[in-house]
Amino acid sequence: MKALRYYGARDIRCESMDDPTIAAEGDAIIKVDRCAICGSDLHIYHGHGFSEDMGFCVGHEAVGEVVEIGRGVKRLKIGDKVMISAAVGCGACRSCIAGNVIACENNGGGCYGLSAKLQGSQAEAVRVPGADYNAQRIPAGITADQALMMTDALATAWFGAKNADIKSGATVAVVGLGPIGLMAVESAYILGAARVYALDLVPERRALAEKAGAIAVDPANAKDFIREATQGRMCDSVIEAVGGERTVDLALRLVGRRGTVSVIGVCQERRFAFPLERAFAAGLTFRIGTCSVPETWPELIPLVQSGRLKPERYISHVLPLSDGAKAYSIFDGRQDGALKMVLQP
Amino acid sequence: MKALRYYGARDIRCESMDDPTIAAEGDAIIKVDRCAICGSDLHIYHGHGFSEDMGFCVGHEAVGEVVEIGRGVKRLKIGDKVMISAAVGCGACRSCIAGNVIACENNGGGCYGLSAKLQGSQAEAVRVPGADYNAQRIPAGITADQALMMTDALATAWFGAKNADIKSGATVAVVGLGPIGLMAVESAYILGAARVYALDLVPERRALAEKAGAIAVDPANAKDFIREATQGRMCDSVIEAVGGERTVDLALRLVGRRGTVSVIGVCQERRFAFPLERAFAAGLTFRIGTCSVPETWPELIPLVQSGRLKPERYISHVLPLSDGAKAYSIFDGRQDGALKMVLQP
Amino acid sequence: MKALRYYGARDIRCESMDDPTIAAEGDAIIKVDRCAICGSDLHIYHGHGFSEDMGFCVGHEAVGEVVEIGRGVKRLKIGDKVMISAAVGCGACRSCIAGNVIACENNGGGCYGLSAKLQGSQAEAVRVPGADYNAQRIPAGITADQALMMTDALATAWFGAKNADIKSGATVAVVGLGPIGLMAVESAYILGAARVYALDLVPERRALAEKAGAIAVDPANAKDFIREATQGRMCDSVIEAVGGERTVDLALRLVGRRGTVSVIGVCQERRFAFPLERAFAAGLTFRIGTCSVPETWPELIPLVQSGRLKPERYISHVLPLSDGAKAYSIFDGRQDGALKMVLQP
Amino acid sequence: MKALRYYGARDIRCESMDDPTIAAEGDAIIKVDRCAICGSDLHIYHGHGFSEDMGFCVGHEAVGEVVEIGRGVKRLKIGDKVMISAAVGCGACRSCIAGNVIACENNGGGCYGLSAKLQGSQAEAVRVPGADYNAQRIPAGITADQALMMTDALATAWFGAKNADIKSGATVAVVGLGPIGLMAVESAYILGAARVYALDLVPERRALAEKAGAIAVDPANAKDFIREATQGRMCDSVIEAVGGERTVDLALRLVGRRGTVSVIGVCQERRFAFPLERAFAAGLTFRIGTCSVPETWPELIPLVQSGRLKPERYISHVLPLSDGAKAYSIFDGRQDGALKMVLQP
Repeated sequence: MKALRYYGARDIRCESMDDPTIAAEGDAIIKVDRCAICGSDLHIYHGHGFSEDMGFCVGHEAVGEVVEIGRGVKRLKIGDKVMISAAVGCGACRSCIAGNVIACENNGGGCYGLSAKLQGSQAEAVRVPGADYNAQRIPAGITADQALMMTDALATAWFGAKNADIKSGATVAVVGLGPIGLMAVESAYILGAARVYALDLVPERRALAEKAGAIAVDPANAKDFIREATQGRMCDSVIEAVGGERTVDLALRLVGRRGTVSVIGVCQERRFAFPLERAFAAGLTFRIGTCSVPETWPELIPLVQSGRLKPERYISHVLPLSDGAKAYSIFDGRQDGALKMVLQP
Repeated sequence: MKALRYYGARDIRCESMDDPTIAAEGDAIIKVDRCAICGSDLHIYHGHGFSEDMGFCVGHEAVGEVVEIGRGVKRLKIGDKVMISAAVGCGACRSCIAGNVIACENNGGGCYGLSAKLQGSQAEAVRVPGADYNAQRIPAGITADQALMMTDALATAWFGAKNADIKSGATVAVVGLGPIGLMAVESAYILGAARVYALDLVPERRALAEKAGAIAVDPANAKDFIREATQGRMCDSVIEAVGGERTVDLALRLVGRRGTVSVIGVCQERRFAFPLERAFAAGLTFRIGTCSVPETWPELIPLVQSGRLKPERYISHVLPLSDGAKAYSIFDGRQDGALKMVLQP
Repeated sequence: MKALRYYGARDIRCESMDDPTIAAEGDAIIKVDRCAICGSDLHIYHGHGFSEDMGFCVGHEAVGEVVEIGRGVKRLKIGDKVMISAAVGCGACRSCIAGNVIACENNGGGCYGLSAKLQGSQAEAVRVPGADYNAQRIPAGITADQALMMTDALATAWFGAKNADIKSGATVAVVGLGPIGLMAVESAYILGAARVYALDLVPERRALAEKAGAIAVDPANAKDFIREATQGRMCDSVIEAVGGERTVDLALRLVGRRGTVSVIGVCQERRFAFPLERAFAAGLTFRIGTCSVPETWPELIPLVQSGRLKPERYISHVLPLSDGAKAYSIFDGRQDGALKMVLQP
Repeated sequence: MKALRYYGARDIRCESMDDPTIAAEGDAIIKVDRCAICGSDLHIYHGHGFSEDMGFCVGHEAVGEVVEIGRGVKRLKIGDKVMISAAVGCGACRSCIAGNVIACENNGGGCYGLSAKLQGSQAEAVRVPGADYNAQRIPAGITADQALMMTDALATAWFGAKNADIKSGATVAVVGLGPIGLMAVESAYILGAARVYALDLVPERRALAEKAGAIAVDPANAKDFIREATQGRMCDSVIEAVGGERTVDLALRLVGRRGTVSVIGVCQERRFAFPLERAFAAGLTFRIGTCSVPETWPELIPLVQSGRLKPERYISHVLPLSDGAKAYSIFDGRQDGALKMVLQP
């Protein structure tokens, strides 16, 4: 099959690769209908990936059709159109069954396309372990594009917003307006926010946030702007959707007394100079982590079905899989208003 | 002063009455700028009031200006424009200070305009006990009309929606689309509902609910309609905004397994034939009660300020206080699309 | 095999019966080590059962050993010692996987031993459908007796206490002190109650509640006693563990403003004269239903392992299965301090 | 009056000082019956206080009798025996009335005895601002010693345990077993913990934690011990009751996936090297701050009245105020099993 393979910094190639095969009885093989590039894929693209492997297939966002199943698979059938959770658990332990694949008792959660251990889904096909749990039939009333967004980006945005302890009437800020940040804006409103301040260096992204009802703020003077707008109270909840010391620190400056900072941007710094004394004085909650995707689906499915969430709006480009390298380059350069980049095998 | 006084079924008169005076050190006298008629006032209008008194002033929704304060009042000043909570507590006990005037340890909560004991606010002025807590300065960015809606109707709608345990993505039904029911529809969306079914016998009211994003349903075939739409699951949460055995029973028929029915319509039946066996099998929560208005303000104020809630849309008529009898008649007959009737002294 | 079979009011016989067999690929056959009689079995014993069937095997509380499994069973193995949830779901739908078998989308939850449709577990062996989910290996550190209590009684007590919205420092009442009521007393303390009032007509049962830290109250004057003890506030939370109009009504009289009544006693009345007006004035929550047993295990297992809950204390009798008829008679007559009756095949 | 005054590191003297006087209409003067030394007072004692002032009166834990009130005080009367919240808000703003003095909108919360701005309560008398809110009559059934513990230590322990998101059945660790840590152990059990691991360098303190039901653990090998005991899952919730980079870091090492670390030890480090990458992988919540004491009283009062919490057990010494310097020295040296040091003027 054809697949996007990693060969070093800024070297992603669409090449042939062995077809995936059933390795365990809970596996399913999914023919990929469409897949997408995630902001976190850029860590790999920049050569700061999560393994030393070369030539592995990248990507972890995909929808497709079940073409083969192991004999332990019970809930999926050949021919089913499915969405594949980016986060992968064993699908059998107590945590996975409770939807919390990040706390999977067998492997502690995993992800496609980070190494050769679990090949990615920017390919013509992908092997899904624990398929009964790590994939789900696309429910009626949800398009393939919407489902694709639900495999990671929308789920993470929603998770980040929920982690931010948003209360009805809350003042919220979102730091970073890639597709996840933009959907975090929308999620914050679904969760009851009265106002959402949206920060990004790119004016076009801020304009999109405004369309979603947010108040756009230039990060350069965000702290002063929000202090004035809130009469010094600052935000109740802040969602960091970038990952990195500078933006996490900014998030911690925007939150008010007894507020919560929720970090969903992928953080690779081992240590961060946390402002302990100020956090102690203000009484803060700092929450950080990755999303157990299937855990979010029971809530997200009806919200997408009913049109309250329209994640497909944040798809900016649809390209053939063979243009994968180009797609990475556009996305990395934030060219042409690049947001979610979709690839079709 | 002029005031609307009750003299028996369908006999409300605008007449002179003694001006209110400070009776306790926590009292304030409020010159009423505008007041409104509540659905529950119709119980009195129909002669099924809450006391045997005659000639008392009716009404419990008003905004106005502080013109006199007792020497114990600390948070309000003469000249302040205030909104007056329809629910009245002592303003000093542990429950009141926690915002729960319904559980006031001194009087168990009260309300204006139900008897001669606490005169109503459909008048040129009204005495407010425990004024520091039972009234609040109208915050910046909120109009008098919006504030008027917050004295009872919006607060009760919000309370009813919160009592319904609405979760993100929930399927909700609202039974009864007077102003409170219509605002319960909007509140359900703020609380995360994916879909709201809106039931009322009056097609015009159903049309208003549709404007607010609801799916209008004729009560006559609501159960079948919702069963089909939800593939038999029925609703997660149902809000009853009428009060009465028939509609409470309907609400209990619309809710699915482990769902919640929240009753905010004023119930005067002493006993109700509760479907115990079915509720046991389905695992239901049945929640009923009146709203401790000030408890809702911290959440509602930013939602109204930011425009997420626009309660003033449900004001259908503005008339002079002297036309009070006519206003009651229009409202009772649901004439002219009557929703919230506002009176100006 | 030998099994307790129902032949009409007060006619339970230990007789031969066909051995259970695998009927679906998710089934397991469990050789019963010990089983127990539940208060709700007395409804059947009194001839007020849930079907017209005759000769079916009764009982729904059992622990035992897996002796045969369908080929779809993945989490259990032959030889495993397991506890069997009294509540049975399909074990595959979204609700079951979330632990909520009562809302099972395929059969709406079920129970052993109510009819010939699903034979009971007061027998030498029992067929368990959806065994991967409806049974669980007995965790290390939990005895067979403890596990037996967790198959229904302790789970229901815990569920009832959680349904009662018990907050830290709460005043709680438990109406009915059978094994479930007594364990509801203990559960209420684990959930943070400051004081638990325990009501039962039988003084010996009240004495057991006192041993568990409760304040024993004679139901005859419970309302006055609790009013005085709480300075009129009454209880924050009341758990009804009997089932029946009279005790549900009593529970509703013991709860104070904004309190919650949780009914776990099995209710067979179709309608109940609910005190609507008073509930409206007081702002009550009324919650009723049966327990999705496996849902409670993640919380109960560590509490039993660590010794904070000692459910085995409420086992009063251990008899051979062949003495089943006698055991029912002792339990029904509340003879010899009968609480949990255990039977050994 | 006599008061303990600060003159530099390890130089606390019992000296004369001007009597406190009413400075604002909300003030009350409290004659101190007994006061106590807090672990955080040692920061001052070591010369690492919160101001450059000299000669001010220290201490923030006290109970006593109201001897004078400003004319704005409404809830307290002369002669009332009261407990004084260590955390001080204006007592009038929205946050204070909601019990959250740390978020006081007027002064952002304060504390006695940190500088000359607000004199301490290790004295014969103390001025309490916003007395209606910042002090409360000692409820019936609570001794002066119990009330004294509720002015800060027990409230902070409770707050820390609640901040740790302890769920029923949780595995908890408490780092640091001064009086606050020991009461955090007890609070964790009240909140439903199945097991509490208790860490302190001092064996005597670990023994006290064992008496309270905890599993004592030597900090030196705590990580390995807990990893083995939990089969690698580590703790659901960890409470840090020391304050300081080393112990906060240890707390973060003891928590498992999706767990919460709650820091209540007073932190004076400006920055802390937070393990960002690991926290991201594990999905942690880090919560830190000081307690809004009055916010805890509605829950703590019934728990102390009913004997579920017995904070007075952690009083180790009672000395006359004139021996204040000695008391500080004993407490600082952890001599004679020093825990809570009480002083009587």
